Amino acid sequence: MTPQVAIVMGSQSDWPTMQCAAKVLDDLGVAHEARIVSAHRTPDRLHDFGKTAADEGFKVIIAGAGGAAHLPGMIAALTHLPVLGVPVKSKALNGLDSLLSIVQMPAGIPTGTLAIGEAGATNAGLLAASILALGDDALSMRLQEWRTAQTDKVAQHPLD
Amino acid sequence: MTPQVAIVMGSQSDWPTMQCAAKVLDDLGVAHEARIVSAHRTPDRLHDFGKTAADEGFKVIIAGAGGAAHLPGMIAALTHLPVLGVPVKSKALNGLDSLLSIVQMPAGIPTGTLAIGEAGATNAGLLAASILALGDDALSMRLQEWRTAQTDKVAQHPLD
Amino acid sequence: MTPQVAIVMGSQSDWPTMQCAAKVLDDLGVAHEARIVSAHRTPDRLHDFGKTAADEGFKVIIAGAGGAAHLPGMIAALTHLPVLGVPVKSKALNGLDSLLSIVQMPAGIPTGTLAIGEAGATNAGLLAASILALGDDALSMRLQEWRTAQTDKVAQHPLD
Amino acid sequence: MTPQVAIVMGSQSDWPTMQCAAKVLDDLGVAHEARIVSAHRTPDRLHDFGKTAADEGFKVIIAGAGGAAHLPGMIAALTHLPVLGVPVKSKALNGLDSLLSIVQMPAGIPTGTLAIGEAGATNAGLLAASILALGDDALSMRLQEWRTAQTDKVAQHPLD
Amino acid sequence: MTPQVAIVMGSQSDWPTMQCAAKVLDDLGVAHEARIVSAHRTPDRLHDFGKTAADEGFKVIIAGAGGAAHLPGMIAALTHLPVLGVPVKSKALNGLDSLLSIVQMPAGIPTGTLAIGEAGATNAGLLAASILALGDDALSMRLQEWRTAQTDKVAQHPLD
Amino acid sequence: MTPQVAIVMGSQSDWPTMQCAAKVLDDLGVAHEARIVSAHRTPDRLHDFGKTAADEGFKVIIAGAGGAAHLPGMIAALTHLPVLGVPVKSKALNGLDSLLSIVQMPAGIPTGTLAIGEAGATNAGLLAASILALGDDALSMRLQEWRTAQTDKVAQHPLD
Amino acid sequence: MTPQVAIVMGSQSDWPTMQCAAKVLDDLGVAHEARIVSAHRTPDRLHDFGKTAADEGFKVIIAGAGGAAHLPGMIAALTHLPVLGVPVKSKALNGLDSLLSIVQMPAGIPTGTLAIGEAGATNAGLLAASILALGDDALSMRLQEWRTAQTDKVAQHPLD
Amino acid sequence: MTPQVAIVMGSQSDWPTMQCAAKVLDDLGVAHEARIVSAHRTPDRLHDFGKTAADEGFKVIIAGAGGAAHLPGMIAALTHLPVLGVPVKSKALNGLDSLLSIVQMPAGIPTGTLAIGEAGATNAGLLAASILALGDDALSMRLQEWRTAQTDKVAQHPLD
Repeated sequence: MTPQVAIVMGSQSDWPTMQCAAKVLDDLGVAHEARIVSAHRTPDRLHDFGKTAADEGFKVIIAGAGGAAHLPGMIAALTHLPVLGVPVKSKALNGLDSLLSIVQMPAGIPTGTLAIGEAGATNAGLLAASILALGDDALSMRLQEWRTAQTDKVAQHPLD
Repeated sequence: MTPQVAIVMGSQSDWPTMQCAAKVLDDLGVAHEARIVSAHRTPDRLHDFGKTAADEGFKVIIAGAGGAAHLPGMIAALTHLPVLGVPVKSKALNGLDSLLSIVQMPAGIPTGTLAIGEAGATNAGLLAASILALGDDALSMRLQEWRTAQTDKVAQHPLD
Repeated sequence: MTPQVAIVMGSQSDWPTMQCAAKVLDDLGVAHEARIVSAHRTPDRLHDFGKTAADEGFKVIIAGAGGAAHLPGMIAALTHLPVLGVPVKSKALNGLDSLLSIVQMPAGIPTGTLAIGEAGATNAGLLAASILALGDDALSMRLQEWRTAQTDKVAQHPLD
Repeated sequence: MTPQVAIVMGSQSDWPTMQCAAKVLDDLGVAHEARIVSAHRTPDRLHDFGKTAADEGFKVIIAGAGGAAHLPGMIAALTHLPVLGVPVKSKALNGLDSLLSIVQMPAGIPTGTLAIGEAGATNAGLLAASILALGDDALSMRLQEWRTAQTDKVAQHPLD
Repeated sequence: MTPQVAIVMGSQSDWPTMQCAAKVLDDLGVAHEARIVSAHRTPDRLHDFGKTAADEGFKVIIAGAGGAAHLPGMIAALTHLPVLGVPVKSKALNGLDSLLSIVQMPAGIPTGTLAIGEAGATNAGLLAASILALGDDALSMRLQEWRTAQTDKVAQHPLD
Repeated sequence: MTPQVAIVMGSQSDWPTMQCAAKVLDDLGVAHEARIVSAHRTPDRLHDFGKTAADEGFKVIIAGAGGAAHLPGMIAALTHLPVLGVPVKSKALNGLDSLLSIVQMPAGIPTGTLAIGEAGATNAGLLAASILALGDDALSMRLQEWRTAQTDKVAQHPLD
Repeated sequence: MTPQVAIVMGSQSDWPTMQCAAKVLDDLGVAHEARIVSAHRTPDRLHDFGKTAADEGFKVIIAGAGGAAHLPGMIAALTHLPVLGVPVKSKALNGLDSLLSIVQMPAGIPTGTLAIGEAGATNAGLLAASILALGDDALSMRLQEWRTAQTDKVAQHPLD
Repeated sequence: MTPQVAIVMGSQSDWPTMQCAAKVLDDLGVAHEARIVSAHRTPDRLHDFGKTAADEGFKVIIAGAGGAAHLPGMIAALTHLPVLGVPVKSKALNGLDSLLSIVQMPAGIPTGTLAIGEAGATNAGLLAASILALGDDALSMRLQEWRTAQTDKVAQHPLD
C-alpha cells in the first residue's frame, strides 16, 4: 500500500516521540513511512523531499523537530501539501523553543502545530487521519470508532 | 455553494483577526461561513455546532479564541472533522495564554494550531485550502498559483 | 450524606494531585464525590455534568486538569455554581500551560483558580470549605480549628 | 444594606480595574464596599482588616493588587472568609508577576484567583455572587438571569 | 553575642536553602538567629516579628520563601531595617514565581533580592555582612579576606 | 557634604529611571552622586570605579542597567561595598532580561536587586537609606518619618 | 568593491531593523550587499543563495528574521561561511520567538546570534567587521578607532 | 602551535559543557587553550585577559558562563577580537537567564551567542573554526569535510 503520510524527523533521537504518530496511524490502518530528514545536517535531502513529496504520493506530512525546529516550516515552504508540526521536547527549555519555532510561521506558509512531545505526535497522527478521512469513508468510520472506543474507556471515578 | 469551511470565533472582537482567514479563502475560491460560537457564553451553541458540523456539510473548521481559549479544543472534542486553531492576541499576555490553551491538547483530540494573531488566521485559511485541495484538483491548482504569485512578489533587495 | 462538593478531573492521572482536595475535605467533614469528566474525551458527560450538577445537589465544584486544561472553564460555562480550578502539573511546561488555560477566563464566566499541583488541590478543598462555611456554622468552627491547628504546628526555629 | 462583599485594593491606581467588580455586583444587587488596603504601605490596616472582616459582616473578600501582589494572600492568612484575588496588570511584566504572586499560594491558605485585569475583576464579582447565591435564592435567580442575558446577547455572525 | 542578622523563612522546608546564609555568616563571624515565620500560616507572628525586629537588636533581616513568596515584602512593610529576600526554588515553576513575588515590590517598600536558591542564600549572607561592615572595621577586614581567599581559590585551567 | 551613595548607570538613557533613586535620597537628605559608567563601552572606567569607590568615600552603590545588564554585578565583583541593582526596562523583553542578568549572580558576589523600572530605582534609594540609617540615627528618624508619611497618605476609599 | 558581507532578511519589513547592520558596516568601510531571501516564501532562492554565497565572494553572512525565524539557521546549513543571526522583534511575542528560533540550533550547524532588534543588527555588523579584521589590518585599525570613539563619547554624568 | 582560540569559562563546573568546544576544535585541528576566568570572582584576571588576548595571539574567544552570565560580554568589552558566548545551563532557570545575559548586549559591543548547553559549546567551536577558515584554506577544507561527514552519517530511516 502506498504510504499516504510521511513522518519525518530531524534525527534518530526524535523517534521515541514520533513513533507515537506511527502507532496511531497503524491503529487506524493508514499507510505511512518514517524518514530522517535533518533541515540542518541534510539540507539537500530536505529540499528534495519537500519538492517531491507530493509526486511520491504522500498526502499529508508530519514533521517533528526540537530546539530551533526548522523542519516543519521548511517542508511547508517546499510543498503545497498540508504539513503538521510536532515540537519535540528539548533539553534546556523543555520544548518551548521547539513550539515557538514551529508554530509562529509568518503569513503565507502554514504548519498545523500540535502539542509538545508524545501527545503532540499522537495527535498529529489523528489529525492526519481526520484529513485523509475527508476522502475516505472507511477511514472516517474507523476514526469515529477509535474515538468512540476512547470515550468508552474513560472510567466514571478515579481509582486509588 | 455549500460552505466547506466554518470560521468560528468566541466573540465579535475576534473578527478583525479571523477575517484574515475569510479573506484568503475568498482569494482561493473556497466557500466558507463565519459564526460566533462562544465556548463560555454559549456552551449549548458550542455543543450543537460541534455535533452537527459534519452533517451541515463542513469539511474543515477554523476556530479562533483568546486568553483561556477553549473553543478550538472543545469543538475538536465534539467532531471528527479536522479542527484548526488560531490563538487570538490577548490583552495582558499577548496571546501566549491563547497559544498554550489551544496547542497543548492531550493525546486523543488534536487541534492543528497556527501562529498568534492575523498571520495565524491567514495561515489557517491556507492550511484549510491545502486540506481541501487533496480532493479538489482545481483548488490545488489555484493554491499552487497563489503560492507561486506569493513567491514572485518577493523583491530581490530591500527598499529604503 | 449528600455530597456537597464535586471533585472532577480530566483523567485518572490527575487523581494523585486531586486527592489532596478529597483529603482536606475529609479532614473537615465535608461530603464530596470524585468523578472523571474529560472535557475532550467525554464532551457529552461534561455537558451533562455541568447542566445537572446543581440539581444533583452539589454546591461547589472543584475541577482539575493539565495542559490545555479546559475542564474548569467549560464546567463554569454550564453551571451557575462556584467552580474552583486546579492546574495539574504538565509534562513539558510544568503546569504553566494548565494555569493559563484555567485562570485567563474572559469576563462573564469565572473560575477561581488555585496554585499548580498538590498545594492547589489542597487549597481548592479549603476554599470550598470556606464557601460552604458561610451557611454552616459547625463547618465554620471546624475550619477555624483546622486553621488554628495549622498555625500551632509551625515550629519557632528550623531543625537541621 | 450591610455590604456583603469587600473590594479591597492596594492603591488608587488599581481602581480602574477593580471597579469592574463593583459594577457587576451593582448589576446583581449585591451590596459591597470598596477600600484601599495596602499590604506594604499600610500593614497595620491590612492586619486589622483581615482580623475584623468577618465580624464586620463581610461574607466574601475580593482583593486586587499588582506586581509583587501580596494583598490577597495576606488577607487570606488573616481571615477564614473566602478570598478572591485579582491580578492587576503591571507596567513591566503585564501582570504575570501579579498573577504568580497571587495564585501560587502554599497549601493551607487559598486565594481563588481570577484573570489578569478587568476581565478578572468582573469575574471576581460574578464568582462572589455565585458564592453568596448558595444561601440566597433571589440572588441565585438574578445571577441565572444575568447569565441568560449574557448568552442571549451573543450574535450568530460577526459584523464587519 | 546578640544576633545582628535574623534569618527567617516560611517553613522548615526552606532551611536546606537558607542554611547557606547561616553558613557564610558563621564563616564571617556574624552573629545570627534563624526563625520560622510563615506569612500565611502565622500572620500574627509575622506582624510581631516585623514590628519588634529592630527593638530586638537585629540590624539586617534575611527572609526566604517560595511560590507566592510574601514573607520578605511583608517584613519590609513592618520594619525600617534593610530586608534581603531569597527566592526559594519552587516545585512547579522552579522559583520564577518566588523571584517575581519578592523582587517586584511597589515603590515605597524595598526588598533587596538575591538569586533563586542556595546561591541567593549565600549571597544574602554576604550582602548582610557587607552592610554590617560599614560600621564594623574588623568585619570589613574579614569580609575582604574572605573575598581574597575566594579569588585565590579559582584555578587557572579547568581539570578533566 | 561627601556623597555617601553613588548612583551609576550604563547610559544617559537610564537616567529617567535612575533619577527616582536620586529623588528619594534628596527627600531623605542623603548625599549622592550620579555617574555614567558603562560596563561595555567604558570597561576601564568600570574597573577604576569599582576599585576606588570605597576609597572615594562611598558607602553604598546603586547601579542600574538594561538588557544584558552587567554593571551591577561587575561593580559588586570589584568592591566590598553593598551594591544594589536596578533592572531598567528594556525595549524587546520589558526588563525581564535586565532582571535576570542582575539578580541571578553566582554564590560569592551579591547584588541586592530591586524591581524593574522606576519603582525599583525609588526602592534602591530607600534601601540605601535604610542601610546608612544603621549608623546614622538622624537619618533613621527621617526614614521612619518618610515611611509614616507614606502610610498616612493612603486614602481609605478609592475615588472615581 | 566586492561585497564581503551579505545582509539577508526575510522580508522588506525587516529592513528598518537590518539597515542598522548596513549603517555600521558603512561607517567601518566594509563593502556589503542587502538582499531579501525568504526561507518560507522563496525556498529555492534560499537554497541557491546558501549554496553559492561562498563562491559569490561573501565572507560573512548576516541574516535577520522574525517569528519562526528559520533564515539564519537554514543558510548556516547550506554554507560553511560564518552566519550571524539577528532576531527581529515580532508582533505578539516581542522577538522571544525569533530569538529562540535562531539561537537554539542543534550541535553541528552554528549561528552566532545577536540581541533582538536594532541593537542586534548593529552588533551583527560590528561582529562581522571584527571577523573580517582578523585578515585585514586596516579594518582592524578602523574598528579599534570606532571602539575608542564610542568609549570617548560616554559622558561622565547624566544630564537632566 | 600557538593557540588560536581561547576557551574561557567562569568556573570548573562549566567545563563539562565547554569541553565540547575543545573537542570539536581538536577534531578540526585548531589549536586552543582552556582557561578559567571568573568575571565575578577574578575581575582583575578578566580585565587582564581581555586586554591582552589579542597580543597573546588569540584570534577568537569562546566564553561560557551560567546564570547572570557576564563573562562573554565583559570580555567583548575589553577586546576587539570576535567573542562567541555559550550560555551554560543553570540550576533554577535551565539557562534562560544565561542566554538572556549573554545575547541581549547593547549596541556597540557584540557577542555571537550559541545555544544553551553542550550543543552551544560544540557550535561555538564550529563557528570559531569557520571564522578562522576565512584565512586558512586547509582548515576550510577540513571543516567542509567535517560537514560532509556529518551529513553522510544521517540515516535514511529511524531505527526502533
